[in-house]
Amino acid sequence: MPTDKLRGVFTPVVTPFHEDLSINLPAFVAHCRRLVADGAGIAISGTNSEACSETFEERMMLVDAAIDAGIPGERVLVGTGCCAIDDAVALTRHAIDRGCAGVLVLPPFFFKNVSEDGVFAYYSELIARVDDPALRIVLYHIPALSGVPISLALIERLVRAFPTHIAGVKDSSGDWDNLAAMLERFPTLSIFPASELLMLRSLALGAAGCISATNNINARAIAQAFSSVAEAARLHESIAAVRKTVERFPMVAAVKHTLSQQTSDAGWRNVRPPLVPLAADAAAQLLQALAGIPAVAAQP
Amino acid sequence: MPTDKLRGVFTPVVTPFHEDLSINLPAFVAHCRRLVADGAGIAISGTNSEACSETFEERMMLVDAAIDAGIPGERVLVGTGCCAIDDAVALTRHAIDRGCAGVLVLPPFFFKNVSEDGVFAYYSELIARVDDPALRIVLYHIPALSGVPISLALIERLVRAFPTHIAGVKDSSGDWDNLAAMLERFPTLSIFPASELLMLRSLALGAAGCISATNNINARAIAQAFSSVAEAARLHESIAAVRKTVERFPMVAAVKHTLSQQTSDAGWRNVRPPLVPLAADAAAQLLQALAGIPAVAAQP
Repeated sequence: MPTDKLRGVFTPVVTPFHEDLSINLPAFVAHCRRLVADGAGIAISGTNSEACSETFEERMMLVDAAIDAGIPGERVLVGTGCCAIDDAVALTRHAIDRGCAGVLVLPPFFFKNVSEDGVFAYYSELIARVDDPALRIVLYHIPALSGVPISLALIERLVRAFPTHIAGVKDSSGDWDNLAAMLERFPTLSIFPASELLMLRSLALGAAGCISATNNINARAIAQAFSSVAEAARLHESIAAVRKTVERFPMVAAVKHTLSQQTSDAGWRNVRPPLVPLAADAAAQLLQALAGIPAVAAQP
Repeated sequence: MPTDKLRGVFTPVVTPFHEDLSINLPAFVAHCRRLVADGAGIAISGTNSEACSETFEERMMLVDAAIDAGIPGERVLVGTGCCAIDDAVALTRHAIDRGCAGVLVLPPFFFKNVSEDGVFAYYSELIARVDDPALRIVLYHIPALSGVPISLALIERLVRAFPTHIAGVKDSSGDWDNLAAMLERFPTLSIFPASELLMLRSLALGAAGCISATNNINARAIAQAFSSVAEAARLHESIAAVRKTVERFPMVAAVKHTLSQQTSDAGWRNVRPPLVPLAADAAAQLLQALAGIPAVAAQP
């Protein structure tokens, strides 16, 4: 893993499933290639990848498939947080071995109301067990799903204890004040909001990019907007229109449905339980709304 | 798996860890044997077992260790719910293969605000993939930790669709009205509250027993209370005193600390992150409070 600051537009890659819900690896690799060609990095095994609905072996396999297909490791983050530390350790070591730029690590998310000491102990134990100078962790703050927040105090404590290993934070809280506070308090970290709109709003404050689900369907525009202030200004309205449209629907199902249209592959609509595909009327509303937005229509 | 109604006092067995947090199998087996000798069944890989902090292989290993040690399968439930269906399928098949009485199945607990259709699809898919007439599922309702409730409507739908496979519900909501409603609406199911106090209160309404963390330290009294109305009346006060004392502390750490005293094995105090052991002052308060309750002092 490199030592320079992680930066860029990363896509929590959605995972294509066959009708029997097994993984469609060729479609996955093709999607990763398109994203990288469009200027985005990829975050394998993110929330929107349905990583928690995948087995340990599937998660390893997806990383191998991307790297073996020639996706440059420096454009790859891997979600490796698991409730069981030893699972997280093995996934993290694998990501390092495959040359990935960093790992995105959820806190253990079954127990709730755990102490800050307990979450600190989880990350400490992970770092001690991985025991590799190349380890670069992006802490994953997504309280609405994990139920276990990564507080500013915890980040500070982790950065102090493990300055070479704590590389950044993904802030999926959607809370502007929290994002702004992270950017102000941790200028040496790579802070990634989970929405391109919050990225655009926080670029001047030092946001490192974003790790956003909608990159799956709008990567080129979002990567262009990240590349320069002029492009950000030019593309802002269209990017916002896409994001706000998709946000009206369940995110994973909506992104996958849109991708099924963009790729003419209906298989992209498959999701694993407990998620369900978009209902027909919702899907029609989504596609109709997106069709009116030029930047999306222009995507390959 | 047998076809008669599941009944009894089951213990979500806490898992002993060495200092390096690896599993102490001999201590686990000895604990299971004591519990069965005291009249309780065991529920391996429950919440209080820290099952979600264990790897897939460790969870299989614990079931094998108990069965190989001669614990009768009809006294064994196994927690097999995982976020990834294929993990749940493999753990469930293993429990059936080893002759266990039933499986206790959490809903997938990473995604939140999922639809009832999605949770129904999870259990349907699990049942279809396991594809075994011996499968008996105890649905696990623990909304405070899973974040995904098992509603009465969902239970009804599952029972209608899979009458031979849905055997019961563990209700860890702690909500009396919910428990009473389950008992009234599903008289053919085995309904297990997560507290022996709610069990004692609901015996006349048909509760099947309980699956309670405090069985780990008070199994003999709780099993005796379940065995007859007279014993329930005799032991109620003491059982309540133990439960209410332990409930003042974080449950897993408190149960393990108490067990470390009962067995004179300090290793029982070890927990995996994100849990933390009891602080010294809390531990002292707990033991002092328990020491004043005769039934606990009488435990081996």
